[in-house]
Amino acid sequence: MKLYDFPVAPSPRKVGIFIAEKGLNIPTTLINLREGDQSSKMFRAVNPRGTVPALELDDGTCLTESLAICHYLERFQPEPNLLGIDAKEQALILMWHDIATLDGYLGIAEAIRNSSELFKHRGLPGPVSYEQIPELVERGLRRSQVFFSDLEGRLTKSPYVAGNRFTYADIAAYVYVDWAARGIDIDPTEGRDALARWSEQISLRPSVGEAT
Amino acid sequence: MKLYDFPVAPSPRKVGIFIAEKGLNIPTTLINLREGDQSSKMFRAVNPRGTVPALELDDGTCLTESLAICHYLERFQPEPNLLGIDAKEQALILMWHDIATLDGYLGIAEAIRNSSELFKHRGLPGPVSYEQIPELVERGLRRSQVFFSDLEGRLTKSPYVAGNRFTYADIAAYVYVDWAARGIDIDPTEGRDALARWSEQISLRPSVGEAT
Repeated sequence: MKLYDFPVAPSPRKVGIFIAEKGLNIPTTLINLREGDQSSKMFRAVNPRGTVPALELDDGTCLTESLAICHYLERFQPEPNLLGIDAKEQALILMWHDIATLDGYLGIAEAIRNSSELFKHRGLPGPVSYEQIPELVERGLRRSQVFFSDLEGRLTKSPYVAGNRFTYADIAAYVYVDWAARGIDIDPTEGRDALARWSEQISLRPSVGEAT
Repeated sequence: MKLYDFPVAPSPRKVGIFIAEKGLNIPTTLINLREGDQSSKMFRAVNPRGTVPALELDDGTCLTESLAICHYLERFQPEPNLLGIDAKEQALILMWHDIATLDGYLGIAEAIRNSSELFKHRGLPGPVSYEQIPELVERGLRRSQVFFSDLEGRLTKSPYVAGNRFTYADIAAYVYVDWAARGIDIDPTEGRDALARWSEQISLRPSVGEAT
């Protein structure tokens, strides 16, 4: 296996934490998205979509999309379990992962990508150029706040996002919350005690570290 | 188990086709999104997010998000397999499902929800009101065309979306393509022979039927 990575971006970071939790050591090539490595001939031959993370299997198959990569790694190294033991827990983790991604990640991405100079002409990820749309900054900020409040609601009832233990749903939600705290000028935990407590707890895991 | 459904919308339609492929018969309550049933006290008690599909388990747990529901049903009724046999096939199905959803569904939704009178003040799904943003119509149409072309590229190399057989990745991609054909005034299969061939083939499956 070989991983193509750019740890500062949220999707690769999710996979990086997952790999660290599993204690796996996978040969890794850095694809610096800020320097355009994703458009290099070498990487396009591996992943024509030009996205990271990408996991190249020994038979040459290229897996993209964080959930797919993590699912493959969970089957490769089942311990510690991060994607659920029984059907119900597995479904709840997938559900909270999708809620965090569709409500949280997409809203935060909207706010960041449509405002930052870094993403000029790249309002959306991937190989196609889309102009920034200033109206989306405000909508993205609002979506982000709705997500943080929903997450606060969930975490007042449940110690972790998908239930009573740390899973991939926490990895995803934490990476998004931390991305927002760094990328848009707000503190998601302000006035949200359960989110603050959970966020602090996740940040202390050795797998998590600092986003660089 | 009990399903809350509104078959005309794309996410419930995916789950409906999945259930029909499995030959399952699940008691179903219609939540008419056009008449605001999602805001009823009864349904909010089941699913506070107000989204369909939602699957209520016998212990009262409410599962939302199509992939989570389908994963649960796959474990409940493993045959015919639709989410993959081994780790690699499972990962490829998850990967193509996410690509179809992030590239296809989100683009098509952008074009439809920001133009149609049906979605006035509801530019995004869910309980929060977001105004339509006219600029997103054009961006959504462009994203949709990029998705159809990428899908055409995939289907010239592979008989089905995730590989050599019909899986959940085909259900998702087909539902999105068909939604675009009905909701925005374009023919996704025009000039795309592999997509046309595949689309025709999927449409003939007894599980698929007509979106109403």
